[in-house]
Amino acid sequence: MEGVDHLAFERNKTQFDVEEMKIVWAGSRHALEVSDKMARLVASDPVFRKDDRPVLGRKELFKNTMKKAVYAWKRIIELRLTEEEAAMLRTFVDQPAFTDLHWGMFIPAIKGQGTEEQQQKWLPLAQRMQIIGCYAQTELGHGSNVQGLETTATFDPKTDEFVIHSPTLTSSKWWPGGLGKVSTHAVVYARLITDGQDHGVHGFIVQLRSLDDHLPLPGITVGDIGMKFGNGAYNSMDNGVLRFDHVRIPRNQMLMRVSQVTREGKYAQSSVPRQLVYGTMVYVRQTIVRDASSALARAVCIATRYSAVRRQFGSKKGGLETQVLDYKTQQARLFPLLASAYAFRFVGEWLKWLYMDVMQRLQANDFSTLPEAHACTAGLKSLTTSITADGIEECRKLCGGHGYLCSSGLPELFAVYIPTCTYEGDNIVLQLQVARHLIKTISKLGSGKKPVGTTSYIGRVEQLMLYHSDVQKAEDWLQPNAVLGAFEARAAKKLVACAKNLSKFTNPEQGFQELAADLVETAVAHCQLIVVSKFIEKLQQDIPGKGVKHQLQLLCSIYALSLLHKHSGDFLSTGCITPKQGSLANDLLRSLYSQVRPNAIGLVDAFNYTDHYLGSVLGRYDGDVYPKLYEEAWKDPLNDSVVPDGFQEYIRPMLKQQLRNARL
Amino acid sequence: MEGVDHLAFERNKTQFDVEEMKIVWAGSRHALEVSDKMARLVASDPVFRKDDRPVLGRKELFKNTMKKAVYAWKRIIELRLTEEEAAMLRTFVDQPAFTDLHWGMFIPAIKGQGTEEQQQKWLPLAQRMQIIGCYAQTELGHGSNVQGLETTATFDPKTDEFVIHSPTLTSSKWWPGGLGKVSTHAVVYARLITDGQDHGVHGFIVQLRSLDDHLPLPGITVGDIGMKFGNGAYNSMDNGVLRFDHVRIPRNQMLMRVSQVTREGKYAQSSVPRQLVYGTMVYVRQTIVRDASSALARAVCIATRYSAVRRQFGSKKGGLETQVLDYKTQQARLFPLLASAYAFRFVGEWLKWLYMDVMQRLQANDFSTLPEAHACTAGLKSLTTSITADGIEECRKLCGGHGYLCSSGLPELFAVYIPTCTYEGDNIVLQLQVARHLIKTISKLGSGKKPVGTTSYIGRVEQLMLYHSDVQKAEDWLQPNAVLGAFEARAAKKLVACAKNLSKFTNPEQGFQELAADLVETAVAHCQLIVVSKFIEKLQQDIPGKGVKHQLQLLCSIYALSLLHKHSGDFLSTGCITPKQGSLANDLLRSLYSQVRPNAIGLVDAFNYTDHYLGSVLGRYDGDVYPKLYEEAWKDPLNDSVVPDGFQEYIRPMLKQQLRNARL
Ligand SMILES: Cc1cc2nc3c(=O)[nH]c(=O)nc-3n(C[C@H](O)[C@H](O)[C@H](O)COP(=O)(O)OP(=O)(O)OC[C@H]3O[C@@H](n4cnc5c(N)ncnc54)[C@H](O)[C@@H]3O)c2cc1C
Ligand SMILES: Cc1cc2nc3c(=O)[nH]c(=O)nc-3n(C[C@H](O)[C@H](O)[C@H](O)COP(=O)(O)OP(=O)(O)OC[C@H]3O[C@@H](n4cnc5c(N)ncnc54)[C@H](O)[C@@H]3O)c2cc1C
Repeated sequence: MEGVDHLAFERNKTQFDVEEMKIVWAGSRHALEVSDKMARLVASDPVFRKDDRPVLGRKELFKNTMKKAVYAWKRIIELRLTEEEAAMLRTFVDQPAFTDLHWGMFIPAIKGQGTEEQQQKWLPLAQRMQIIGCYAQTELGHGSNVQGLETTATFDPKTDEFVIHSPTLTSSKWWPGGLGKVSTHAVVYARLITDGQDHGVHGFIVQLRSLDDHLPLPGITVGDIGMKFGNGAYNSMDNGVLRFDHVRIPRNQMLMRVSQVTREGKYAQSSVPRQLVYGTMVYVRQTIVRDASSALARAVCIATRYSAVRRQFGSKKGGLETQVLDYKTQQARLFPLLASAYAFRFVGEWLKWLYMDVMQRLQANDFSTLPEAHACTAGLKSLTTSITADGIEECRKLCGGHGYLCSSGLPELFAVYIPTCTYEGDNIVLQLQVARHLIKTISKLGSGKKPVGTTSYIGRVEQLMLYHSDVQKAEDWLQPNAVLGAFEARAAKKLVACAKNLSKFTNPEQGFQELAADLVETAVAHCQLIVVSKFIEKLQQDIPGKGVKHQLQLLCSIYALSLLHKHSGDFLSTGCITPKQGSLANDLLRSLYSQVRPNAIGLVDAFNYTDHYLGSVLGRYDGDVYPKLYEEAWKDPLNDSVVPDGFQEYIRPMLKQQLRNARL
Repeated sequence: MEGVDHLAFERNKTQFDVEEMKIVWAGSRHALEVSDKMARLVASDPVFRKDDRPVLGRKELFKNTMKKAVYAWKRIIELRLTEEEAAMLRTFVDQPAFTDLHWGMFIPAIKGQGTEEQQQKWLPLAQRMQIIGCYAQTELGHGSNVQGLETTATFDPKTDEFVIHSPTLTSSKWWPGGLGKVSTHAVVYARLITDGQDHGVHGFIVQLRSLDDHLPLPGITVGDIGMKFGNGAYNSMDNGVLRFDHVRIPRNQMLMRVSQVTREGKYAQSSVPRQLVYGTMVYVRQTIVRDASSALARAVCIATRYSAVRRQFGSKKGGLETQVLDYKTQQARLFPLLASAYAFRFVGEWLKWLYMDVMQRLQANDFSTLPEAHACTAGLKSLTTSITADGIEECRKLCGGHGYLCSSGLPELFAVYIPTCTYEGDNIVLQLQVARHLIKTISKLGSGKKPVGTTSYIGRVEQLMLYHSDVQKAEDWLQPNAVLGAFEARAAKKLVACAKNLSKFTNPEQGFQELAADLVETAVAHCQLIVVSKFIEKLQQDIPGKGVKHQLQLLCSIYALSLLHKHSGDFLSTGCITPKQGSLANDLLRSLYSQVRPNAIGLVDAFNYTDHYLGSVLGRYDGDVYPKLYEEAWKDPLNDSVVPDGFQEYIRPMLKQQLRNARL
């Protein structure tokens, strides 16, 4: 960050304390310090260079990924990094790798589903990286429907072993990250069969490759499933295919915390509640929500900085042209995404608290809040990842033509992000689960069961059915209660309408299928309410720093009112607001955009991203875009020679009208 | 298409004549025959193989593209293909190449802006491919604002030459396709300067490279601008950078049809009307609308076929699971896109007529419809490309995890398509132009100027302001007039509201800037009305074939009502419909989905795409998805060896806890 700061004139306009905002964004001063230290560590180390990623072939890219992952591990040990620091360091390396699944899925699966004994045996090996594990659930034929998996694990009482087998082509494991080329072990999900009886899907630890020569063990066929979206992107990951031909593993490699098979082949449940498994899901999904805010923030940071650099039209008498960030259409597309990044940050923070709350209750055998917490994390995972995926592409478009270059960083960011909408639960399937929970909640109201947590507003449904906003002038929409009331009433009224329509079906399941699209809309309305209300709750806290809270209030209003505008059909048709009130909200939005405008650069600086992590010429901190774009261009392999390879064979004969002689 | 047809059971359900629908889709029996012949020609020729594209490095890909382009040209000559056939053949080769710009921009620019003499000199060379041309307008610093280009062309009366020069870094030409490595010539846009006076931007034919050794001529710096979005995608194109250091060209290489520079250096306008230039724009944009329907149709075809193959959940007693195409959420996401593909087809067809109409009028010096035609094509280019870009990604998501594999064809389709939202006019900038035209149109009503063509409904604005839909039951929404009335009234009422708000500003331009986001929404509403009304007009024609017209009626209703649902805020807030009427439309939509469902496969078969062109394992005609997915996987370079390159250096030392010895 030496040299001239081309965005200094923007930074001088900032009306709040950016350093304090950095702390708010990071979550705490400590978190900021850790992330700052790790980001700089990675940025300053040439091994972690990533600007050449888009031109690497698959093999080179994969070799480079192994190097980075192993080198990162080496540094983690050398520097004796804490778990928190190590995780941060891996984040900033910013290249999907087998280690993501090893730490993020394999180890948690053993922790969550393994017995004490199993944990004692496997965790030290995994935590020292003497083995590398992945998470092999999805098959060619089954992803969303886990209960339909076909791989079998048949107990053989003669040898005290399970026989793992892939009976059909569609039972091939397909997608697990880290499986294709690297993992030595996997947690494999398979139908447990004892004595001819199918007990459904269970997890098993299976060794896949020799720890000496890395060759697949007998009976195992394993490989990579091929290229995925984007240049570098997720192609640094060896998502794999795996088939078993009667592979035998000892009985004690079934993960037996919740259910067991005895030496005699008897299947039994342990006293440990099944629900514990949901705890892991809540955990994983809250990290996804946090990552959504980070990814969206990256895209927004790039688009905002570039929009301040980019000038187009509006020059008066040969003067400077207008910064595209000053165009209201640009603001109306960009600032709601900026607000969403902050909104997702805070709802993510709250989910972290929710996870701890759930775990404490589970330990005390209190399962009462679990269904609500589960629905809530499922819905928020779906909502935040969908908006983030679309938002990254919108940010790319906001950068005009130059956004289409890999050097803008946005194509890679998009390509690597989008599968998040599919894995850990397809986003539509998840919203259908939320809808089921909401319908259940409202249908139980009669029996006196009080809705808890994020569904508690449903307890006030009768009152909310009567709701009509009392907003009279644009500024009234700045009141948190005006916003909250409208969002609660909209969600409640949509839910009641769905419940009513459902009640017309004699077969409720058939009704649910028929009305599924409406139900998903209702679930989304519910999730938006959660995000809005957690943002408002955050603002009730004491937030230090000059102007910091005020900026967040602006963003909170932008988040809520841009949603109200986008979904005005919902708010109007349910009678929550009048057309006049909708139009007042829209007027207010415009003025909020103007208020945020001078602070836009400050608000993205607060994410504290290094240029290395952003990986974008357009998003450079110093705004020195054009010379660097120009410089980057020449690095393309095509520019290695002035006359391209192929000219003599193809182009020249054509120009010379001698195509018959061309080697074609 | 040998072997078992796994979708035969679907095809048997079809209730209409697919062969007749193919003709409707293609536009005529002749068009179908040509496209069918060309598609098969390409598909059967191994040179045009494209399944290996995602794993090719940049240089290999580029060499392969030159080969294909030149080979295609050879075949075009050998087979004496007509212009129509040649264009079709290039379409089905399906790999962006320098030839796209040569035929699509360079030649049309000379035709449109060159004098008779210039055309006689340059066109034969270009049409025989003795020279290769590109279209060099955009610069590093200016894209949308063409008037802001910085390259200069200064007339030197001493030598009767223009001196082409790049005075700044930002004046470097940047983006032109075909420029980076292949083109020998370019139409270069530069500020014309005579005798110290700046006459604004004009076009010049400039030779860039030697026709012998292909080296750049003195004073010219040229190269490729680097990797773009996606693996193969647009990386087969050499989008280029170009700088001029006082490069001299003869005076007669300025394109002089509309304005000239004389031997003495006098600048003069010819008698040819400037407006002719807009004709070319209308032409290019109508082809973009047609291409939008084709691209969207490809994605929809893949997602529809795969959704019929894919089964997930809902198995009863071990029977088959539910096809995901039967889920209402899947239908609600997919069928509006299917309907949009057809809608865009028909509006594209109409635009072709519009273009011919405009050209005839221009020839007769009738410029009266030009502004309307220009606004209309700009708006439709924007609308159809935006929906198509988002629609392709939605189709990818509809395929779950497998859609993320390159072998699904969808990542490449997306990556190659999206720049269409940016080039030939940024989609937001275009809608702002439409909005300006609409505001102008309504403001001139008072002076008795009658709106023409697609804006003629604005002439009925007073009547439309009083409009309230009279729909009483769901089926009423099947009436074309019910739909048309609501869409006209919504567009008109939004326009009036904008005009009213604008009138509150003393400075109209400031008002336009402030209200830009609302104005864009109004322009979009106007464009949607055009598409809806052209679809309805199409259905007033005689359409032969069993059930064909009925299916199109279903799709037309789906197109209109899904928009009505999506934008219900507009329709409600303007009082065009009541919440009850909105809810009836929604009920009808569900039943329309059920009616289209058995015909879904037939409706995508009617696109008549070959498996080669689709380039998707998921979208295969025969539905034999799983074995082919499995087969494709093993072709990845990573599977060349069982143990990956890098294992010995990095992974093994880590597993063996000997990181200190690792080469890191
Ligand atoms: C990059 C990536 C990494 C992955 N990593 C792993 C990993 O490490 N380990 C692992 O085990 N798996 C992994 N997966 C697999 C992933 O978990 C699945 O792809 C995911 O669960 C979605 O399942 P699916 O692909 O079967 O989608 P499908 O269920 O086939 O979805 C197809 C369509 O059907 C719809 N649909 C499905 N069911 C219903 C329903 N009941 N109602 C309405 N609509 C429905 C969906 O909405 C979607 O539109 C990974 C996937 C990707 C893309
Ligand atoms: C793949 C590809 C191929 C191309 N091929 C060619 C070619 O062959 N020849 C050639 O000459 N060019 C080519 N181009 C360049 C292309 O024409 C430009 O990128 C395009 O015109 C957009 O201009 P821009 O990049 O300057 O966007 P910008 O104008 O910089 O847009 C940036 C942002 O500013 C906004 N904005 C700009 N002006 C306004 C305004 N007045 N009001 C509100 N918002 C505004 C836009 O909406 C956008 O969000 C190509 C581009 C691409 C991506």
